[in-house]
Amino acid sequence: MAISEFDVIQRFFASRTPLRNDVVLGIGDDAALLKVPEGQQLAVAVDTLIADRHFPAGTDPFDIGYKSLSVNLSDMAAMGASPAWATLSLTIPEADEQWLQGFADGFFSLATHYGMALVGGDTTRGPLSVTVQVYGLVRGDRVLRRDGARPGQAVLVTGTLGDAARALEQMQAGGDVDAFLLTRLNRPEPRVAFGLALAGIGSAAIDISDGLLADLGHIVKASHCGATLWVDRLPASSTLKRIGPEQRLPCQLYGGDDYELCFTVDADKAEQVIEIAGQQRLAVTEIGVIEAAPGLRCVRDDGSVYQPQRAGFDHFADENRDKDTGKPGI
Amino acid sequence: MAISEFDVIQRFFASRTPLRNDVVLGIGDDAALLKVPEGQQLAVAVDTLIADRHFPAGTDPFDIGYKSLSVNLSDMAAMGASPAWATLSLTIPEADEQWLQGFADGFFSLATHYGMALVGGDTTRGPLSVTVQVYGLVRGDRVLRRDGARPGQAVLVTGTLGDAARALEQMQAGGDVDAFLLTRLNRPEPRVAFGLALAGIGSAAIDISDGLLADLGHIVKASHCGATLWVDRLPASSTLKRIGPEQRLPCQLYGGDDYELCFTVDADKAEQVIEIAGQQRLAVTEIGVIEAAPGLRCVRDDGSVYQPQRAGFDHFADENRDKDTGKPGI
Repeated sequence: MAISEFDVIQRFFASRTPLRNDVVLGIGDDAALLKVPEGQQLAVAVDTLIADRHFPAGTDPFDIGYKSLSVNLSDMAAMGASPAWATLSLTIPEADEQWLQGFADGFFSLATHYGMALVGGDTTRGPLSVTVQVYGLVRGDRVLRRDGARPGQAVLVTGTLGDAARALEQMQAGGDVDAFLLTRLNRPEPRVAFGLALAGIGSAAIDISDGLLADLGHIVKASHCGATLWVDRLPASSTLKRIGPEQRLPCQLYGGDDYELCFTVDADKAEQVIEIAGQQRLAVTEIGVIEAAPGLRCVRDDGSVYQPQRAGFDHFADENRDKDTGKPGI
Repeated sequence: MAISEFDVIQRFFASRTPLRNDVVLGIGDDAALLKVPEGQQLAVAVDTLIADRHFPAGTDPFDIGYKSLSVNLSDMAAMGASPAWATLSLTIPEADEQWLQGFADGFFSLATHYGMALVGGDTTRGPLSVTVQVYGLVRGDRVLRRDGARPGQAVLVTGTLGDAARALEQMQAGGDVDAFLLTRLNRPEPRVAFGLALAGIGSAAIDISDGLLADLGHIVKASHCGATLWVDRLPASSTLKRIGPEQRLPCQLYGGDDYELCFTVDADKAEQVIEIAGQQRLAVTEIGVIEAAPGLRCVRDDGSVYQPQRAGFDHFADENRDKDTGKPGI
């Protein structure tokens, strides 16, 4: 039985959204009406996930719903903003109730955790694609921007790097995918609590969606400086450590989809930040130093230079890779 | 030559956006940072347009860019909100520079007119699809909601109805499409200035995207009342008047994509509103009355009942129509 667009929004989304008293008008009018508290700025991020590009079309709908919100929450974390509201634009080939239920379960597992209200929705029939927009609140003097890095500051990352990229490699090779790695790919944990704790201490931050080199590259470019990275110190999960550095380092340096935070702080604050993260049971690792000279330099612990083969993934320019695999890009 | 995602955003969009001093941080960080003035609420609307559903894939990219913003501005108009910022999520099969130029020209022709800043963008390769989100500002006591209609109030509409639907009929018949009608379909003029003037006077408003009956239906349902519509008084363009009422009325009653405003005001304010619109060179027509009894009643000028055949278009439920035509739905 066909289910209408209005029913889809009402049944699977509007009825499940957490309530907030700063939502004057939610789903169901021409626009939502929201109250931004005095002294707070509005942080806005948008991301689109497309079937067979960002995820295989057959991915568990729970994971698609989860990740479509998670990648935007990760942007809030990287700004030091507190997520408040979201809108969802969902394009699906057909209104499959079981699929919608799974998608909504995944979406709301995160939305509910963060007490976020879904305030707008648009559902259309077409090739599977999800656009989520997240709105957060942050005080102007606490924002973590990309352009705040200064020479001498320490470069750090949360969690471990390369797990998602390794899962994708296994998927593309057609073999079994390690369950831990697959969870890291499909259900990245946005570092929202840590981003909030870092706000006011950190000088620059970005979330790693395109790969460490590409994303740290954005920070140093915006900040008109450069950095040296100690590649042997990049944090790796015990699963990833099972493969040697020749295979592992590319995952850690170029792999997108980790959604860890890469950030900079004054060198004398690195220990304090690592301690704060520890209180949240989150590992944070110092991986390099900001320098005045532009560009990124990768060095091994023995002092030799590690030569990166390529930067992060780009949806338009990185065509060969896509054509080779015929699988979703990172 | 392949053009990268970063280049697409920078060259075609970021470099062209109007500047506003309430944009703390625009395109180029993890999130945009925006300042909402004290005393204003934030109005948020999102709409997705999909190739071969909302428009034929071969549509002039200028028109796609124009319409993707216009339909969201229309939502702002229906709230009585002043549009301030937008974000764009653009999925395109390939980074065709000529297409992107045309799309951006259409998008910015409206954005510039309204002094709106584009503050976030996401471009991905995939089946052509455009999601635009618009943010507006409105004082809480001036908002035009759907639930404000009261029995005895007058029902009015801006402009003329049915032009877009008639253009679509001609397109689906495979013949020539009248140039005026095609412009009405592809470049709907959002009634932003009129919405701002109506705010504080009108009691309820909606923009006609799904058809007059469907959209007025949303107002009366939200307001727990009903309405009688005088179908012979529905405003029609001189082009539409060339076809008889049997063919014309369905276009006017069920045709989406007009993006005119349907609104209610106290009966004694109808003349005042028509005069305000006249100062903007916009026709506004009284087409019915709000009543306590639920539902919509369509009557002819001779007192007979006009029996509507169906309500507005729904992207999931209205499958037969889509299958029959194999053409984009309204």
